[in-house]
Parts: sequence; structure tokens; C-alpha cells
Amino acid sequence: MDDMTFVLFGASGDLAKRKIYPALYNLYVEGKMPSSLSVVGLGRRPYSQEDFREIIKESLSTFSRREADPSHMEEFLESFRYFIFDAMEPQSYADLKAFIEERETEKSIPQNRLFYLSVAPSLVEPITASLQKSGITETDGWKKLIVEKPFGSDLHTARHLNAELRKAFDEEEIFRIDHYLGKPMVQNLESLIRPNPILKSLWNHDQIANVQITASETVGVGTRAGYYDKSGAIRDMVQNHLLQLVMMTALHHPEKLSAKQIEEKKSAIMEALRPVDEGNIQQDVVRGQYEEGEVDAQSVVGYQEEDGVEEGSNNDTYFAARLYIDNEYWKGIPFYIRTGKRLAQKSTRIIIEFKNEVEDEPDSEGATSNLLLIEINPNESIGLRVNLKDDGNEKFEPAYVNFTKNLDEQPEAYENLLNDAMAGNATYFAHWNEVELSWQWIQPILEAFEADDLPLHTYHAGSQGPEAAEKLLNEDGFTWWEV
Amino acid sequence: MDDMTFVLFGASGDLAKRKIYPALYNLYVEGKMPSSLSVVGLGRRPYSQEDFREIIKESLSTFSRREADPSHMEEFLESFRYFIFDAMEPQSYADLKAFIEERETEKSIPQNRLFYLSVAPSLVEPITASLQKSGITETDGWKKLIVEKPFGSDLHTARHLNAELRKAFDEEEIFRIDHYLGKPMVQNLESLIRPNPILKSLWNHDQIANVQITASETVGVGTRAGYYDKSGAIRDMVQNHLLQLVMMTALHHPEKLSAKQIEEKKSAIMEALRPVDEGNIQQDVVRGQYEEGEVDAQSVVGYQEEDGVEEGSNNDTYFAARLYIDNEYWKGIPFYIRTGKRLAQKSTRIIIEFKNEVEDEPDSEGATSNLLLIEINPNESIGLRVNLKDDGNEKFEPAYVNFTKNLDEQPEAYENLLNDAMAGNATYFAHWNEVELSWQWIQPILEAFEADDLPLHTYHAGSQGPEAAEKLLNEDGFTWWEV
Repeated sequence: MDDMTFVLFGASGDLAKRKIYPALYNLYVEGKMPSSLSVVGLGRRPYSQEDFREIIKESLSTFSRREADPSHMEEFLESFRYFIFDAMEPQSYADLKAFIEERETEKSIPQNRLFYLSVAPSLVEPITASLQKSGITETDGWKKLIVEKPFGSDLHTARHLNAELRKAFDEEEIFRIDHYLGKPMVQNLESLIRPNPILKSLWNHDQIANVQITASETVGVGTRAGYYDKSGAIRDMVQNHLLQLVMMTALHHPEKLSAKQIEEKKSAIMEALRPVDEGNIQQDVVRGQYEEGEVDAQSVVGYQEEDGVEEGSNNDTYFAARLYIDNEYWKGIPFYIRTGKRLAQKSTRIIIEFKNEVEDEPDSEGATSNLLLIEINPNESIGLRVNLKDDGNEKFEPAYVNFTKNLDEQPEAYENLLNDAMAGNATYFAHWNEVELSWQWIQPILEAFEADDLPLHTYHAGSQGPEAAEKLLNEDGFTWWEV
Repeated sequence: MDDMTFVLFGASGDLAKRKIYPALYNLYVEGKMPSSLSVVGLGRRPYSQEDFREIIKESLSTFSRREADPSHMEEFLESFRYFIFDAMEPQSYADLKAFIEERETEKSIPQNRLFYLSVAPSLVEPITASLQKSGITETDGWKKLIVEKPFGSDLHTARHLNAELRKAFDEEEIFRIDHYLGKPMVQNLESLIRPNPILKSLWNHDQIANVQITASETVGVGTRAGYYDKSGAIRDMVQNHLLQLVMMTALHHPEKLSAKQIEEKKSAIMEALRPVDEGNIQQDVVRGQYEEGEVDAQSVVGYQEEDGVEEGSNNDTYFAARLYIDNEYWKGIPFYIRTGKRLAQKSTRIIIEFKNEVEDEPDSEGATSNLLLIEINPNESIGLRVNLKDDGNEKFEPAYVNFTKNLDEQPEAYENLLNDAMAGNATYFAHWNEVELSWQWIQPILEAFEADDLPLHTYHAGSQGPEAAEKLLNEDGFTWWEV
């Protein structure tokens, strides 16, 4: 890995503390760091270097999956410097440039600069523009930009944002984080079939009945109503995470693909995704909003009663849809996706349901569809559901054949992603084509939501979501598999 | 289930205490008993009815998987009567007849009589002959005979024994117990594929590389040298249990089969089993005998030093072989079987190894063959071994996707078998055709062993067996999978 400068905007922010410092530390322990590294943490607060070191140490002791080892803490922290910074102040950039260069000289680091924008969305454009204007991005080495979601709030703003970023960075230099793509089980999707002849033989167009992708939360809107009441589940979860899971699931390639091929295949999937229009939106899309109910045996208020939610808000806290990928492989196989807050269970998972030819045969009492179950969160596991004879040897009952990864040994999504970005591997980042195509697919739904053309179904907190989402599958003879 | 008399020869024996009474009790708890039942326990010892009840109660408190419930013990024990009996004394049979009839009258039970011979092998023929001579087997209802292994000690004696039994009972009336066939996971083999499309698609001639059947023990010959030194692993384990597992594995039928069809298919498999002769015995069969070694960190003596073993005995405590079933489905797919005492692990299992096309491809480092693993004992589980990316996301490593049955809720083999025999279902018993064909296949090996035509390989107690057994697979490019 090239020696580099890692410029972190938002060094005292929540994401830095919860994810970025622990990820850097674990990569450091695993020897996955350049031999010479300069991390420059930027923030408005007038922290001393000592303050900054304390922030990092506290972040590690609170959030790192590995316990922070004091014996090499000095070496780890030696790379880090805090720099007081005002993103809206041109002089700050000139000073930052000098500071970066000074450290580069001091540590003999070539001008390889990675800029990580862990900041409010409104700051992304001005920071990028100022980076260019100040000359910081004019380097003898390489430059990279890591940006967090949201990437725009609709097709128009996303295109605008991208155009602005592209003035300072090429597409190959932009790493758009979708942390779902960093999760080990999602990364396993790409190589699930290739090394496993038995999965290759069963992951077969003729045998797959449907695909079900769920990302359910038990939490409500919490303290984020200001943001969430404007974005809704569709922007918060569907446009990015759920559609990325659709792409990763639909990739289906028996041979090893290059990063470039994966990017191209993902775009091709989005291009083949049947558009939502007036003709099908009412049948295929369900939006919902939670009412009061019980979660984990505790009474909770409805969305309308949450602090910061606008009176009479018709914001979506639940979203479900039926998708079709009109390519040769997936033709006719429905993908059902759903996400929501205040549901019965916290779970992100993908289920492949296989066709069930035996259900109605005599002597098959109790036999249900075989499932391939990929759990992404909070467990990371892969499982099959098969039918075995019950204990009384009289009928069949489903058995979960399951493999759960040892979570303690699993790298965090941010470790994988930071490591990849630092090494220049863009496989598990959201490329512009995908992002644009996602917004393009989402846009008519956004407009229908805004025009209130679609019913807003209510569901009780702690339930499985609105009944309309169950009907979506029942119409096709299926049901959501709860596990 | 018909009301009946259950005549148990050997009522104070080890098998009765360990297996038969607990099985009857658990069937009783589950309501799987005739509404009127007379159990007549026979033995030479002059027990009182009260003694007999104590024996049964102690058997239940020691060996039953369900705790014996005192509140219905009286009702359960009401069916049982002890009868002092000398199997070699004709008058005993006349008295037994009168006793059975008296109880039949008392309990209004029709003349349905099941005779369970839990006795020394030498008593099986005389008891059967005397049962007939005494008229006990001339009933207005049905009659059934349950016999335990061994069923003969070679082809000749097995045929002779069968001819003797058939003078008193029809083939349909004889239930030969092979308790491996009573184990839930073995019974699952028959219906593993049918209700599971995903297993149907992978259990495929073109994809199966080989089948490995292991029945290994950690114990030595113990106190059974008198019997074992004459029978060896080949008679004790191979002719019956291992060949039954071969048949059950090879059954492979996607549709529901009747008991009769299963019987026919099993015979057809034995008929298709490539015979062992002078041409292949040296390559395909390995016999072994354990030397001193360590088992569970304890030093143990070699077979030659065990009490009761004849000096210079060349008895086989280990057996391995390569088998081919020359039918359309299994043509060219080797079955490897092995069994032995004083091995590293106690395990009965069947492994289906799938062909591995990816092993040598680039980007497949660490990928090994996919396996379907059926554990029969001491765990009952079904599992798959697949390749997932390792935690570092750099190479593949095998992951066991596993489903383990809750053993507490599993019926014991004898529960399944007694229930079936009482209900007249012969599916999971060894039919004469199979037994005869098994002995026929075994006979040339027995003769080669007796003539000492085959090397006797030694292996250290606590090891995986003789190296020659590993070579058997290595020659074909395979290896035994230890799990």
C-alpha cells in the first residue's frame, strides 16, 4: 500500500469516533497500513494534539472490536495530527495545504492524498470546490475522495452533486461509501457460487421462486426526525442500501469477475430493473408509517407523536416493493424488498426461495419451500432450510442448516471499506452509474409520494409492517419468510 | 395398532434393560401402544412379579430418555408379567402357552403374538423350533418374530438359520433388527431428497465424487473378546451395519417408495455391488488390528494384550474397503467404508463428496471440495461444507453449514423399531434377501481372512487407523474427511 496522507474532515464527529478510528486501529493491528502514514484530523473545535489523542483513545476503548493494546498505542497515534479548520474559510485550506506538506516532508510521504468527507451533506460541495481551488488536490501522486451518504436527495440533486465533485475528482478517484457493501456477508455474495459447486447447481434460474430482501429496524426515528422526516425510508434505506443488495444478489456470476466487470454488471442490472410508472406503482409499491405499539415489551409512540416530526407528516417509515429484473437470468423471478422502522425484529437478510414441487404431493405433509438464507445483520450467517422428518417420523418439518460466522473475528464494514479505498480497490463502493440509475428508478416513486398518489398504510410499532406488504407476496402465491 | 401379546425372551438380559423397556415406556408415553397389551417376560431366574417390576423400574430410571413418571407407572407396569422359563425344556413351552392364553382371556386380547428373541445366538433356533412344536405359534391372529444380530456367522450358517426360522415363520413375519436402521438420521436418508428440491439438484450422479461411510469407535474389545475374537469387525460391523448404510445411501429415489419397493431396491443395490474376488481383494480391502496407544489421553494396551484374545490372533479390529455399485446411477463413483475399534473418534457418519472443479483455478485459494455430511452418532446432524471467504477476505476457507437435531427429543432406535415391528411395518428391518446378499458379498473376504491371504495392518490405538486405508483413497485422488 502506498504511503499516504489521510485527511479526515469531521474528526470529532460521531462517525469518526464510532467507525473510522476503530477501523484504522484494527487495520493497523493487522498490518494493513502503509509503512508511512499521516492522518490529519480536521475540525472546528480548538482541540490540542493531546485532546485529539484522548478522543481517539476513547473511541477505541468504546467502539473497537479489538481491545486497544496500550503497548503499541504510541506507535499507532504517532500518525495522527489535529488541525483546527473552518470549511467555509479559504485561509483554512491554504493553511491545511502547508500543514499536509510539512508532514509529508517530515515523514517522507509522497503526495498521495485521500480526503474523507465525514461531514454534513451541505458541506460536501463547498469543501470539494475549495480543495481544488486551494491547490491541495494538485498532487504529484494520487488523490482520492471518500464521501458518505446521502448522495443527493433525488435524481436532480444527485446529478448536480456528482457534477460538482467531478470538477475536482475523476470517477475513479471517488469512493462513495455504502457501508452495507462493506459487510462480510455482502462481500461473500460476489463469491458465493464460484467456489461451491453445490451452490452453483442450486442457484439456478429454473429453481428460484423469488428473492426476498429485508432490512428491518426496531428503533424509531429517535433524535433524527429533522433529517428523517424529509428523507423517509425510501431515501434513507431503499435508494442506496436495498438497491445495492438487489444488485449484489442479482450479480450471479459463476466466474471470477474483475472490479470493472462487477461495476458493469451492477449497472446492467439497474438498467434491466423494470421501471416504476403509473401503470404499476399502485400494485408494486407499498409505503407505510408506524403507529403506537409495543417493541420489546415497551410501549412506544407513533411516528406522528415523535419529537421533531411535522404535524400531519405523510413521511414513509416503511417501504416495500415488488421488482423485476428483465434480463435473461432473472426474467419472471420477483424480487421483494422491504425496510422499515419500529418493526418486530432487527434484521438485514436475503432469502432465496426455491420452487416447491413437493408441497402438494401425498406423503409430503409439512414440507415447505427450501430457502437459502443469507443473514447480514446483526448475525452474519448463511443457511439452508430443508425438510427433515419430524421427531415422530410422521411428517416433515423445516430444519435450518446454518453456519454463523464468529462475529468477534469479523472485520467491521468500515475496516473493509477503508482498506479498499486506501488500496484503491473500488469493487465495494457505489459507482456513479449505479447511483444515477438508482435515483432514476426511485424518482417516479418520490414524485408519487410527494403528490400523495399512493396510500400511506399504517402499522403498529412492533408488528411485521402493514398488511399491504404481505398482500404484495400473497398475490403471487408467496409469503414473507420471517426467521 | 392391534392388541397383542409381546413375548420377550431374555427379560432380565442387558438388551432388555438398556433398550427394550425404555423403548416400550417411551412409546407408552407417546400413546403408541395397543389399547390392550400383555407383555410376558421370560427368564430362567426365579423372579417374583415384584422383582420383575423393580427390574423394569430400575431400567427406566437408568436408561430412559424421558424421566419415568411415577404417576402412571402403575398403569404402564400393569401389562407386564414375569414367567420363569427354561428354553431347553419342552414343558416350559406348554406352560408358557397356557400362561399367554390366560392373559389373553383376562385382557380380551386376540391371538396376536410377537416373539422377541433377545437371547444368545445359540438359542435362536431351538426356541423357534419349540415355539412351533408347542403350538404357541398356531394363532387365530397374527404372529411375528423379532431377532437380533448376529444373523449367522457366514453365508452357510446364515442360510441354515434362515431355513430353520422359516419353518415356523414366513419372511413377512420375521423382523431382523439392525439397530442402525432405527436411527432417525438413517431413516431420514430414505426421504432426504424427495421433499428438498435443493438436495435433489445437488445429489446428482455427475456431481458426486465419492461416498465415505465411517463407523469408528474409541473403545477396545472390552469384555467381549470371547465373541469378538471370533467374529472380527467384518462380522460385527461390516456385514450388517455398514452394508445397510451403503444400501440406505445408495437408495437415492426422488419419489416416495413403498416398504416393498425399498426392500426391492436394497436387494438390487446388493446385487449390483461389484463382487470381491482374487483379482481385486488386495487392492480394495484393508484389514487392521490395533496396537497399544493413547485414547483420550490414556494409555491403552494393544489387541494382542487384551484379556480373552487368543495368542497370535489375526482377528480384524479394523476394516476398510472400496466398493463399486455397478448400476446406472452409481457407476464409477467409489464408496469407501471403514470401521474399527480404538480409533481417534467415536463417530458414525456418511459423507458425500462433490466434485471440485474450482480447486485449481486462480483466485480459488483455500477452496476445497463441498461435502454433504450426515452424522448418525453420537450427534444426529446434517450439514454441508461450503467455501466462504475467510475473515481477512483474502482466500477461501471451509465453513460447515450444519443442522443438529435436539437429541433429547429424538426417539431411540429401539423405539422406532419396536413401534414398527408391533405395527407390522418392515421398512427398517433387514430382509432376508439383503442379509443373504450381504453374506454372499462378504464370504470371499471371510475366506481370505481365514486363509491369511491379506496383510494384517497394525495401527496405534487412538489413531485414524492403518495407513493402508488412507492409501485406498489417495490412489483415487481422495482423502478421508475427518470432521
